[in-house]
Amino acid sequence: ASPKKVLVPVADGTEEMEAVIVIDVLRRAGAHVTVASVGQEPKVTASRGVKLVADAIVSECGDEKYDLVVLPGGMPGAEHLRDSKALEDITRGQAQEQRAYAAICAAPAVALESWGLLNGLKATCYPSFVSKLSDPSSAESRVVKDGLVVTSRGPGTAMEFALTLVEQLYGKEKTQEVSKGLILL
Amino acid sequence: ASPKKVLVPVADGTEEMEAVIVIDVLRRAGAHVTVASVGQEPKVTASRGVKLVADAIVSECGDEKYDLVVLPGGMPGAEHLRDSKALEDITRGQAQEQRAYAAICAAPAVALESWGLLNGLKATCYPSFVSKLSDPSSAESRVVKDGLVVTSRGPGTAMEFALTLVEQLYGKEKTQEVSKGLILL
Ligand SMILES: [Cu+]
Repeated sequence: ASPKKVLVPVADGTEEMEAVIVIDVLRRAGAHVTVASVGQEPKVTASRGVKLVADAIVSECGDEKYDLVVLPGGMPGAEHLRDSKALEDITRGQAQEQRAYAAICAAPAVALESWGLLNGLKATCYPSFVSKLSDPSSAESRVVKDGLVVTSRGPGTAMEFALTLVEQLYGKEKTQEVSKGLILL
Repeated sequence: ASPKKVLVPVADGTEEMEAVIVIDVLRRAGAHVTVASVGQEPKVTASRGVKLVADAIVSECGDEKYDLVVLPGGMPGAEHLRDSKALEDITRGQAQEQRAYAAICAAPAVALESWGLLNGLKATCYPSFVSKLSDPSSAESRVVKDGLVVTSRGPGTAMEFALTLVEQLYGKEKTQEVSKGLILL
């Protein structure tokens, strides 16, 4: 089987732990993860000053089909993700074609809700953004899965979030194997 | 009071989650963290392909006094850290002048033990390297603190490791505050 394709968009102000934990854990599981900047250049400065160099530019990623698109949080990173028409189009395509998407921290409320892509879905996000969720009934859970959409709360839940995405793409056995390598089991 | 100064060295093959969690969490606590490449250039490619740009080069950091030096793991990253004479000198200075140092994953065994800087100290590291520890009696603990030296096991213990370092530098109240912001409490 060809490797699962995952897109992780990043921007200035993206939460670096959330981005890096998702990228690293999914690559450990075997996914082909493309880190893509929503700006004009691959280099971004994350929310606590870590400088990351993306593999690609989001506006050049629209022709690819992804098994999963994952939006990290952080502010103003989540606003930059929201404001990227190219990323909005890619994520809307995931919803329309029944492919998975996910977001953590500020991104479920700030990006996915703004695009109408959490309508009718249970979700969670960083506590200070919960009032923006259309269905906050599960907002106190650390990770929420509703259909193909996975959301989570913040840096301290990023590892569980990433492992839920591994399970979604690869199943329980691979998730256990990756967890052991991380010294979580 | 002037901000606490922390040095986090990175190399090609450094575990990116371990590096980024430590850098981000310590900056959230208020530390002035310098990310420094042991190579000739600031840009490194971490163990799962994340490209990071350091703030500085380790060989130019020798004149500064750090409150804490923290070595992330990952292979061959930990070997590159071990092979940096400039980093060895800085870390040896920490030990000689009773200032703190710490390491996680491969780095306690591969770098600190190679330099003789865990002699007589309880420590832990990634399970496959435990046989190289001079005192492995606490190796099953997720985080081990012996005097000024803190060690930990791997990516899945990196958050607890980082918070132990926050407590060492800033105390329990700040650690609680940072933990809440991370959605760990
Ligand atoms: Cu490691």
